[in-house]
Amino acid sequence: MIEVELKGYANDKIFEKVRERFKFMRKETHEDIYYQHPCRDFSKTDEALRIRIKRFNGHFEAFLTYKGPKLDNMSKTRKEIEVPISDVDAYSDLLTSLGFKEVLTIVKVREKYYVEKGVTITLDEVEGLGKFIEIEKLIKDNENIEEEVKKLRKILEVLGVKKFERKSYLELLLEKLKKNGSEI
Amino acid sequence: MIEVELKGYANDKIFEKVRERFKFMRKETHEDIYYQHPCRDFSKTDEALRIRIKRFNGHFEAFLTYKGPKLDNMSKTRKEIEVPISDVDAYSDLLTSLGFKEVLTIVKVREKYYVEKGVTITLDEVEGLGKFIEIEKLIKDNENIEEEVKKLRKILEVLGVKKFERKSYLELLLEKLKKNGSEI
Repeated sequence: MIEVELKGYANDKIFEKVRERFKFMRKETHEDIYYQHPCRDFSKTDEALRIRIKRFNGHFEAFLTYKGPKLDNMSKTRKEIEVPISDVDAYSDLLTSLGFKEVLTIVKVREKYYVEKGVTITLDEVEGLGKFIEIEKLIKDNENIEEEVKKLRKILEVLGVKKFERKSYLELLLEKLKKNGSEI
Repeated sequence: MIEVELKGYANDKIFEKVRERFKFMRKETHEDIYYQHPCRDFSKTDEALRIRIKRFNGHFEAFLTYKGPKLDNMSKTRKEIEVPISDVDAYSDLLTSLGFKEVLTIVKVREKYYVEKGVTITLDEVEGLGKFIEIEKLIKDNENIEEEVKKLRKILEVLGVKKFERKSYLELLLEKLKKNGSEI
């Protein structure tokens, strides 16, 4: 399966439209700890490795996720491997022992909405970055990615999205910190 | 916690003595898939990373284990981080995507015996290497490792062990394959 994903800049108006039109699924808080590879520059290879701590309705879940390089020029489509983890500290210790280094932690509040079978919309309020909207569809390896991207893009445009963004929150936050001259 | 561990070469006679004297705990089959680090030579840094698939009494369990460099010159004492994994294929895919490479798979039948509180003896029949005995004790970080090693060594000597071995099964098997001129 491939995750076709499109992200755009949002505002209160767009958030409200989504809340009115689509079926609310859940609200989650994410704490994402991003890691650097011991000998590969993920910012150049366009990969990512993170531990996500997810909180919702008093539940707690954690995942280790690898994201491969993007597969096309329009969307955020990429290989993704995600495994549930039971002990965040042990995994953090394991990654550090193998030479992976913590880069940054990103905190966001996420609302998820059902659009149609296989398609979801996500409203993200990211600490330090603001409001974003994402639309996502899981497709089979042999389906036409480009066509799917067009359809998803149309849905976001109808909601009022004007500016799209292929960069990850990690990239955007790193850029912002760089601009502000902050030490990471 | 630190795992103090001592390993020696065994034979049928030593196996029989252990079976008579100590309380049988369980019998397991291990399939250990060892990985190479993408940019660190584990054979030089004395580390290891493996996926262990454990089968016993019709059960199936899998773990991802990191072993750090040995901490002293006498025993196999080292830092160990072990996490249970639910999906071997996903983890194998994850490690491969991060640049880790499969080196070798080691298969063994292991019998475990209870010696006294915190101390266990293990009888290993390793495919391609033969019979080994291991004694293991988990101690706190501030306990005297050297003293503990001496005590454990004595127990193995009384059972008839003459030759000790600090090398891992992975190292021994790699050496054997090298001697035989086999391609790995």
